[in-house]
Amino acid sequence: MTTLAKRLFSEFLGTASLVAVVVGSGIMGESLAGGNIAIALLANALATFWGLYFLITCLGPYSSHFNPAVSLIFFLKKDLDFKTFLYFIIFQTLGAICGALLANVMFDLDIFQVSEKLRTGSNLWLSEGVATAGLILIILLSPKEKTAIMVASYIGAAYWFTSSTSFANPAVTIGRVFSDTFTGIEPYSAMYFILYQLIGALIGFVIFTFLRK
Amino acid sequence: MTTLAKRLFSEFLGTASLVAVVVGSGIMGESLAGGNIAIALLANALATFWGLYFLITCLGPYSSHFNPAVSLIFFLKKDLDFKTFLYFIIFQTLGAICGALLANVMFDLDIFQVSEKLRTGSNLWLSEGVATAGLILIILLSPKEKTAIMVASYIGAAYWFTSSTSFANPAVTIGRVFSDTFTGIEPYSAMYFILYQLIGALIGFVIFTFLRK
Amino acid sequence: MTTLAKRLFSEFLGTASLVAVVVGSGIMGESLAGGNIAIALLANALATFWGLYFLITCLGPYSSHFNPAVSLIFFLKKDLDFKTFLYFIIFQTLGAICGALLANVMFDLDIFQVSEKLRTGSNLWLSEGVATAGLILIILLSPKEKTAIMVASYIGAAYWFTSSTSFANPAVTIGRVFSDTFTGIEPYSAMYFILYQLIGALIGFVIFTFLRK
Amino acid sequence: MTTLAKRLFSEFLGTASLVAVVVGSGIMGESLAGGNIAIALLANALATFWGLYFLITCLGPYSSHFNPAVSLIFFLKKDLDFKTFLYFIIFQTLGAICGALLANVMFDLDIFQVSEKLRTGSNLWLSEGVATAGLILIILLSPKEKTAIMVASYIGAAYWFTSSTSFANPAVTIGRVFSDTFTGIEPYSAMYFILYQLIGALIGFVIFTFLRK
Repeated sequence: MTTLAKRLFSEFLGTASLVAVVVGSGIMGESLAGGNIAIALLANALATFWGLYFLITCLGPYSSHFNPAVSLIFFLKKDLDFKTFLYFIIFQTLGAICGALLANVMFDLDIFQVSEKLRTGSNLWLSEGVATAGLILIILLSPKEKTAIMVASYIGAAYWFTSSTSFANPAVTIGRVFSDTFTGIEPYSAMYFILYQLIGALIGFVIFTFLRK
Repeated sequence: MTTLAKRLFSEFLGTASLVAVVVGSGIMGESLAGGNIAIALLANALATFWGLYFLITCLGPYSSHFNPAVSLIFFLKKDLDFKTFLYFIIFQTLGAICGALLANVMFDLDIFQVSEKLRTGSNLWLSEGVATAGLILIILLSPKEKTAIMVASYIGAAYWFTSSTSFANPAVTIGRVFSDTFTGIEPYSAMYFILYQLIGALIGFVIFTFLRK
Repeated sequence: MTTLAKRLFSEFLGTASLVAVVVGSGIMGESLAGGNIAIALLANALATFWGLYFLITCLGPYSSHFNPAVSLIFFLKKDLDFKTFLYFIIFQTLGAICGALLANVMFDLDIFQVSEKLRTGSNLWLSEGVATAGLILIILLSPKEKTAIMVASYIGAAYWFTSSTSFANPAVTIGRVFSDTFTGIEPYSAMYFILYQLIGALIGFVIFTFLRK
Repeated sequence: MTTLAKRLFSEFLGTASLVAVVVGSGIMGESLAGGNIAIALLANALATFWGLYFLITCLGPYSSHFNPAVSLIFFLKKDLDFKTFLYFIIFQTLGAICGALLANVMFDLDIFQVSEKLRTGSNLWLSEGVATAGLILIILLSPKEKTAIMVASYIGAAYWFTSSTSFANPAVTIGRVFSDTFTGIEPYSAMYFILYQLIGALIGFVIFTFLRK
C-alpha cells in the first residue's frame, strides 16, 4: 500500500469515525435526555471531545486533517500539493457521508435520509466563521505533540460558546446533511455554513501569519 | 510469586475493578438520576473513562488487557502463547463476575442475580462489532505511553456513539449478566454480543494489518 | 511586528476569547437547560475549563496572563515593568469587553448591553478573595509546562466550590458587565468583586513568598 | 521556614482546600440541581477530580498526602517516622475542619455546624474499605509523575462506583462532620467510616506487597 493510499485511507476512516461519533452521540443524547437539550449537548460535546482526541492521536502518524478547511490551509502553506489536496477533500467528504450512514444504521434508522433541520441566520454564520478561524489558529499555534488534545478541547468548548454549536468543518457539515437527527442540517443551510467556514479559515490563517511575522 | 501469577492476578484484579466501576456507577447513576437516563449514562461513561484510565496505567506494568477480545488479538499477533491466552480469558472472566458480585453487595443488592435486560437486534450487534473493531484499532495504533488514556477516551465516546453503549468486551459482557441493574444484560443477549465482539475484533485486526503493510 | 506588540495582541486575543467562551457558553447553557441551573453551570464550567486549557497552551509562547490580577503579581515579582503592566491591563480589559460583545452578537442579542445581575454580599466577596488567592498560588506553584491544565482545572473546580462561581479576574469581570445574560454582573457589584480579587491576589502572593522562603 | 514546617503547612493547606472543594461544590451542586441528585453528584465529582489534580500537582513538591490513611501506609513503609506521622495527621485533620468552616462561610451558612446526615450500613462500610484499599493501591502503583491525575481519576470514578461515594480519607471524613450539607456526615457514622477506611488501607497495602514481591 503506497503512502498516499494510506493517507487517503486515514482521512476517510478518521472523518467517517468523527461523523459517526458526532451524529451517533447526538442521536443517543437526544433520545435519552427526555427533552433537556442541554444534557444531550453535554453528551454530544463530551463524546466529540473524546473522539477527536483518540482519532487525531491514533491516526496522526498517517494523516489526520479530517477537515477540508484544514487541508485548504495546509495547501496554502504549501505543505500539501494541489492534487493531494483534491484527493483529501474527496476522501474526507466520502468518509463523512459514510459515517453518517453508519450512525443511522447503528441506531436502527433509515440508512438514507436528508436532514430537514434549518440552521440559518447571520449569527449562526458569524459563529461558523469565528469557530473555524479559531480552529485553524489552534492547529497552527499548538505544539505538535499537543494538537490532538488542543483540537479536542477547542471543539468541546466551541459546541457551547457559539450559537451554531461549531460545525467548523465542510466535510462534517456535508455528512450531517445525511442524518435527519439531533446534529443534522438541511442542504441549503449547509451550503452557507461551508461558505462561512472557508472565510473563517482564511481569517484564521491571516491572524496566524500576522502573529508569526 | 512468579511473573505469570502476577500477570494473571493483574488481569483478574483489573477486570474485576473495571466491572465494579461499570456496574456500580450504573446503579448509582440510575438510582440518583430521577428517570433521566442521559444523566445516568453520563455518570456511567465518565466513571468508566476514569476507571479505564487509572486501571490500565497502574496495572499496565503487570498486564492490562482486561478483555478476551484484546487477548485474542495479541494471541494472533503471537505476543501471547496459547496456554497463557487461555489462562488470561479464564482469569478475566472470573474477575468480571467477581466485580459484578462486589458491585451488587456494595449497593446492598442480592449478591447472586441474573440480569433480565434484553439487548437484542441487528443494530445492537452491528454496534458491538463496530465498537470492538474500533477498540482493537485504537489499542494497536496508539503510542504505547498513551494506550491508557486512548482506550479510556475511546470507550467514553463509544458509550454514546453506538446504540449498544459499547460493551466491546466478552468478559465484561459475562460479568454484566450477573447484575440485574442499569448495565446488566440477559444471558442469551450476551451470547450474541460476544459473537459480534469477536467478529469486530478480527475486522479491526485486518484493518490494522492493512494499514501497517 | 515588535515583540511587545505581539504580547499585547496575544493578551487582547486571549482575554477576548476567554470572555467569549465564558459568556457564550453561559448563554447557550442557560437557554438549553430548561431551568436546571446546575446543568447550565456544568456546561459553563466545562467550556471554560477547555477554553483556558487551549488558550494558555496555544498563546503561552506569546503571552497568556489574560488577567490583570496575574499581571499585577508578575509586576510585583519584577517579571513585568510598570509600563508593560499598564499596557497589559489595558489590552486585557479591551479584549474582555470585545469578547462579551462578540458573544452577544453570536447569540443574536443586542451588541451593547449592561448586565443588571446583582452579585453582592460578604460571602461572595470572600469567595472572590479565596478564588483569586488560590489562582495566584496555582500559577506560581505549578510546573511551567503544566500551568495551562492547572489553571483550567482550578477554575473548573472553583466555579463550584465558591458561591461567586469564581470570576477571579478583573478584566473578565469588566467584560461580563457588558452582557446581561447568565454570566453577567452589574457594574456596582463588579467594582466590589474587583476590589476583593486584588486583595485575594496579594494574599496568594504572600502565602507563596512564605512557602518559597 | 524549616522543611518540616513547610511540609506541615502544605498538608494543612492542601487538606483544607480539598475539603473546601468537596463541601463547597456539594453545596453549590445541590442548591442548583433542583432535586436531581445525580447532577449534584456529577458537579461534586468533577470539582473533586479537578481539585485533587491541581492540589497534588502544585503542592506535591512540599507534601501532598492530605489523608491520614495514606500517611499511615507511608509510615508503615518507613518513608515517614512516627513523630512526623503524628504531626501530619494533626495538621491534616485541622486543615480538613478549617476547609469545611471556610465552605460554610463562603456559602453564607453558620460557620459552626454539625452534620446530621446518617451514613450507616454494612454496604457503606464495605464501600469505604474497598475505596480506601483501591486508593492506596493506585498511589503505590502509579508512576510518580502521574500520581496526581491517577488519584483524581480514581476518586472521580469512586464517587460513582461505591455506595458511600468514597470518602476514603479519615481527615476529610472528620472535616465533613462540620458541615450539615450535601457532603456532610454525622459524627457517629464518621467513626465507623474511619474504622473501615483504615482496614481498607491495610488491605490495599497487603495486596501491593503481594504484587511487588
